[in-house]
Amino acid sequence: MSVVVHREYVETRTAVFTEGVPLDCGFLLAPLTVAYETYGTLSPSRDNAVLIAHAFTGDAHAAFWHESDEKPGWWHDMIGPGKAFDTDRCFIVCSNVLGGCKGTTGPSTVNTATGKPYGPDFPPITIRDMVRVQKKLMDHLGIERWLAVAGGSMGGMQALQWAVDYPEAVQSVIAIATALRHSAQQIALDEVGRQAIMADPYWRDGNYYGSDPPARGLAVARMLGHITYMSDASMREKFGRRLKESGARFHFDPLFEVEGYLHYRGESFIKRFDANSYLHITRAMDTYDLIGERRLAEVFAATRARFLVISFSSDWLYPPPQSQEIVRACKSAGCDTTYCNIQSAYGHDAFLVEFAQQTRLIRGFLNRIRPTRENRNA
Amino acid sequence: MSVVVHREYVETRTAVFTEGVPLDCGFLLAPLTVAYETYGTLSPSRDNAVLIAHAFTGDAHAAFWHESDEKPGWWHDMIGPGKAFDTDRCFIVCSNVLGGCKGTTGPSTVNTATGKPYGPDFPPITIRDMVRVQKKLMDHLGIERWLAVAGGSMGGMQALQWAVDYPEAVQSVIAIATALRHSAQQIALDEVGRQAIMADPYWRDGNYYGSDPPARGLAVARMLGHITYMSDASMREKFGRRLKESGARFHFDPLFEVEGYLHYRGESFIKRFDANSYLHITRAMDTYDLIGERRLAEVFAATRARFLVISFSSDWLYPPPQSQEIVRACKSAGCDTTYCNIQSAYGHDAFLVEFAQQTRLIRGFLNRIRPTRENRNA
Repeated sequence: MSVVVHREYVETRTAVFTEGVPLDCGFLLAPLTVAYETYGTLSPSRDNAVLIAHAFTGDAHAAFWHESDEKPGWWHDMIGPGKAFDTDRCFIVCSNVLGGCKGTTGPSTVNTATGKPYGPDFPPITIRDMVRVQKKLMDHLGIERWLAVAGGSMGGMQALQWAVDYPEAVQSVIAIATALRHSAQQIALDEVGRQAIMADPYWRDGNYYGSDPPARGLAVARMLGHITYMSDASMREKFGRRLKESGARFHFDPLFEVEGYLHYRGESFIKRFDANSYLHITRAMDTYDLIGERRLAEVFAATRARFLVISFSSDWLYPPPQSQEIVRACKSAGCDTTYCNIQSAYGHDAFLVEFAQQTRLIRGFLNRIRPTRENRNA
Repeated sequence: MSVVVHREYVETRTAVFTEGVPLDCGFLLAPLTVAYETYGTLSPSRDNAVLIAHAFTGDAHAAFWHESDEKPGWWHDMIGPGKAFDTDRCFIVCSNVLGGCKGTTGPSTVNTATGKPYGPDFPPITIRDMVRVQKKLMDHLGIERWLAVAGGSMGGMQALQWAVDYPEAVQSVIAIATALRHSAQQIALDEVGRQAIMADPYWRDGNYYGSDPPARGLAVARMLGHITYMSDASMREKFGRRLKESGARFHFDPLFEVEGYLHYRGESFIKRFDANSYLHITRAMDTYDLIGERRLAEVFAATRARFLVISFSSDWLYPPPQSQEIVRACKSAGCDTTYCNIQSAYGHDAFLVEFAQQTRLIRGFLNRIRPTRENRNA
């Protein structure tokens, strides 16, 4: 008996906005290119569009397959026919963030004014700027209102920012393993990563394009990142104190499996990510602050969106109390809000791993929101 | 009214063992120098000696003042007349660990065989080797039995190792914020620090003595260390999201106070600590494992020592369950064991901060053990 595996393919497209986008810092970034993918079909009434916002080092390839893929998009288990984000019913959009290195304008993009990559001249960006860019893509696609904006981690920040900045354009928000603002500890962890990159002499103040990049510094930053994405328990479960099979040749070579894993993760990362994007995007996360001088009840005062907020019990990078603060902000603004703290040992990574429970929650939530004949008649 | 402040002064002394010390790796490290300090007076019956073992980057200067000091030794609030370790009654010894850079033989020490610092030729060391060196100092001082061996963090590892390796020589153990072995997460965090150092081109495979040291890499390692020493709550309390008063000149200069603090800590550290010592000592902590292939009940089977085990509620680097595992090992071996999990927001740093509660516990514990006329007659 042979199993026929049906693969749905997708290509990353780009939209170019020659007029550019004005940034919070005052800089007009032009032209602006946005890389994005879509899955499913936009309904004639254009009321079934869902925006998926990716996390820190993600990209527009959220689901389905590229011709060259060894594995599908990063949230393939969540997006597709019959899945949490059901492409039989919804039109899903995912774009690479502003400042990234996967097709959307970022520090490695050629600055048309100089003919060279922006490098150190790339302007400071904010989560709000990222959302502003997504709004341009939304207009470009002829969508007036998102059925939902959804994302985990930094993707969740963007989803929350959408509800604040474009309340009319957001019917619901799915914010997973995220926060209204970074804590001192989160800022501190990001700063260690940035310092590891900037300590690398190959960084050259950001002027490394065309020469060797600050690979070792970037790898160190990523190693730390991976520790924060896992939990104490999941690291214990996955590695314990097991020694690497191939013994260390030099005294400070990786001795334990967990060290080998971090090295592997660091080495893989430097092939796919740009150090200047790392600096800019972490800074955008650190300066993001939906509360600011406001009272918590004022944060979502302008929106009538429904909220689904999800946290994971063992996530110490975006711990459940941060999600509970989001919930308090939503409820005190009178928003219909559902919250679940999923029991999981996977730490922050759980939003990329715990599919069954997230699917159940998200399907139920979207079923209440998705336009149906009855809803329309109501 | 003037307040007369009486300062007790102390000097770091050194003991030289020309015969050296055999290490677990098979290497005979000779000669061996040990830097140490003592506080209080050894009783004629030599039964009031307490060994204090310092943590990772500590040194022999645990209490009292050096002539040049701006502040006294690192556990001055715990050691002195009437304090937890009462110098009116006890004779306190503290020595710099093997592999360190504060007077005891380590990677920066001149290798008499070559006339140059050991550098990359310094042999791998273990916590057991550190204790073996302390045993030599003990013999040198004419002490046959410690009333107590006490320490926090890596100091606690040494205290526990003493009970295993020299059960006859240890009357009691005070193990604070420590573990029977490092978890995968602890190893992983150490490995990021090591990689930050070794990624620094000035490290030169450990051959940097006489030239610029790998200061930036070492500072990055220390910044990460400080995050792990604090708790999420204590960082929130101390820094929150407050911005630095002097604004960042360059976009990736420290913007938040917490970033400035980490930079300050990193910069201070590189003036006082040696990168190769950092590598060797963290590796010693990672390879330390009192359980190994044994059952928990076998770990302390050879000792009749009394144990005081202390953890701190917000310590996520050496979390309370690790202390509770020590307690299980002690109790299942039939040892008289007292355990307290002190409620504190200070994270791992609490053992250097929470003096009142530690003092109460330690004084009570030592009063039960300290030789008195009645005890002797009993």
